[in-house]
Amino acid sequence: MTPITESQIARARALIDPIFLGSPIVRQTGLDAALGCSLALKAETLNPIRSFKGRGTEALMASLTNRPTHVVATSSGNFGQGLARAATTRGVRATIFSGEDDNPGKLEAMRQLGAELRLVPRGGNAKALARDMAAKAGALYIEDGAHPEIAAGAGTIGMELAMQCGALDAVLVQIGDGALISGVGSWIKATSPKTRVIGVTATGAPSFRASLKAGKPLGISPDTIADGMAIDLPIASSVDAVAAIVDDVIEVDDEAILDAMALLLGSASLVAEPSGAAGVAAIMQNRKMFGGLKIAAIVTGGNVRPELLAQAAGRADDRASRATVRRAEWDSAAAL
Amino acid sequence: MTPITESQIARARALIDPIFLGSPIVRQTGLDAALGCSLALKAETLNPIRSFKGRGTEALMASLTNRPTHVVATSSGNFGQGLARAATTRGVRATIFSGEDDNPGKLEAMRQLGAELRLVPRGGNAKALARDMAAKAGALYIEDGAHPEIAAGAGTIGMELAMQCGALDAVLVQIGDGALISGVGSWIKATSPKTRVIGVTATGAPSFRASLKAGKPLGISPDTIADGMAIDLPIASSVDAVAAIVDDVIEVDDEAILDAMALLLGSASLVAEPSGAAGVAAIMQNRKMFGGLKIAAIVTGGNVRPELLAQAAGRADDRASRATVRRAEWDSAAAL
Repeated sequence: MTPITESQIARARALIDPIFLGSPIVRQTGLDAALGCSLALKAETLNPIRSFKGRGTEALMASLTNRPTHVVATSSGNFGQGLARAATTRGVRATIFSGEDDNPGKLEAMRQLGAELRLVPRGGNAKALARDMAAKAGALYIEDGAHPEIAAGAGTIGMELAMQCGALDAVLVQIGDGALISGVGSWIKATSPKTRVIGVTATGAPSFRASLKAGKPLGISPDTIADGMAIDLPIASSVDAVAAIVDDVIEVDDEAILDAMALLLGSASLVAEPSGAAGVAAIMQNRKMFGGLKIAAIVTGGNVRPELLAQAAGRADDRASRATVRRAEWDSAAAL
Repeated sequence: MTPITESQIARARALIDPIFLGSPIVRQTGLDAALGCSLALKAETLNPIRSFKGRGTEALMASLTNRPTHVVATSSGNFGQGLARAATTRGVRATIFSGEDDNPGKLEAMRQLGAELRLVPRGGNAKALARDMAAKAGALYIEDGAHPEIAAGAGTIGMELAMQCGALDAVLVQIGDGALISGVGSWIKATSPKTRVIGVTATGAPSFRASLKAGKPLGISPDTIADGMAIDLPIASSVDAVAAIVDDVIEVDDEAILDAMALLLGSASLVAEPSGAAGVAAIMQNRKMFGGLKIAAIVTGGNVRPELLAQAAGRADDRASRATVRRAEWDSAAAL
């Protein structure tokens, strides 16, 4: 994939259902105090599919000149929700291949949005099954990360960040299949070259990080709670596109992600799924690097497994219990 | 208090720091499916004080022609955060009297926003102490609910709901001191008389409900997790103002509120404090009344005690575990 241009992103934005656009920026004094920087959070959790994926799937489906009658894809949930909505609202069938162990909430959400689900047993090759079915059914096989329209759609987040936040020292962007960071990073680097574009990967999903180092796709099986970033093997064009715009890559482990989910719950009233909290986790793990800077991070999704939500909420409670409430600084009414 | 007019609300909106305005509407297919109606949630949790109170405190402080050097008020947290921010950003001192058992997160947030806190022991008369201090210090005593500017500021939520949602069958509005519902209800009743304005009170905070029935203020001590709605005694003018615009009042107990908090966490990625979830709790408890209707509810705040957040998240987990994932409806990949 050649780098995404501002023109592609601007045109994508005109095609996307406005319900996915203009997501709010959330700033919280308490969050800034906890992180030691000035943080703008782009909340992509409030739209009908509760993730950023609707931007890319809308841009793709709206741009197809020969509209198919049927699309087929693989997804652990968020991309599938976006594709199901973008397809079925246009009268197009959507079949999504998911893992049978995938987040049941995401599976149910895809179904509610009209997806026909095919559940693949653990260890099965969902991509091969999906490609095979598409070929047999005469359907269009769609791979998240392989279509420039999807990256351009995701890039509208970069366009909006630039408009909503002004000059930024750094933008933190999760790396899953690479479409989000290549889209966002392309806009940021083209319009504000001094802003650092920092990729965030999950420690338990090292294939994209390893591929960037090697300069070619390397497959490594993921094992992380961040299902939205858990890919096996990136696409070559996506590795090239990310390499062209990324300044640095930070990895965050599942513990750091749970801490970040807890911080977002307690200090910003935001429910983030693990991938959605990864940018904040990267700041928590690298306070010196980001101290005093103006930073943006994207809360990419809020479709979290209930047991992980409960775990994160428990941590928010623990942290609050440990915190010394500085009552000594306050006069008591008795002292009046 | 005479009823709030559209003119007062429109003028208030022009005075309020825009950071508190234009909060997003959140709609979720899963939420609608769970509730059996079409629900628009007005999310007032994403601004710098994480509650709707900033609208009223901004409208009040901006409208004072003889600006005081010092304001004094009582608050369990959200009103105090709003007043502290509106005062200190204008170079005005703010002293807030709170209960020493109040939500520590709210106390800390008020302090971070520049409030000088006075903690009143349980059973103490915070209002009397605050009035006394204001008189001695030559400060302006401000009572939430007593100033029409505060109700007009809150009424901007009604103005925005009308613009964002179009025709609604009903609007659910929490009743604390009455400023929110008198402001919102005034706009709704003036511009869309057929829309029902339904007040929501906490079972454990019955004084406003009893006062509406009696037609005069009746004092009853509250005992509820919904600290934002837990008042002892409403102001007479506020009882009159609410009586003029309310069609019905529903009460919700703490159990229903925790269930609603869990539903908002799991199905809308929103962190609501107990008062913030009361509107959704009212729908959950009265499905028949609201079945199939177009409804708006206001998530008034997200400053929740961590232990209650953890409790609600645990319920979201329990519900998900109980839910039968309808996998039988989906073909398995093996059946291809």
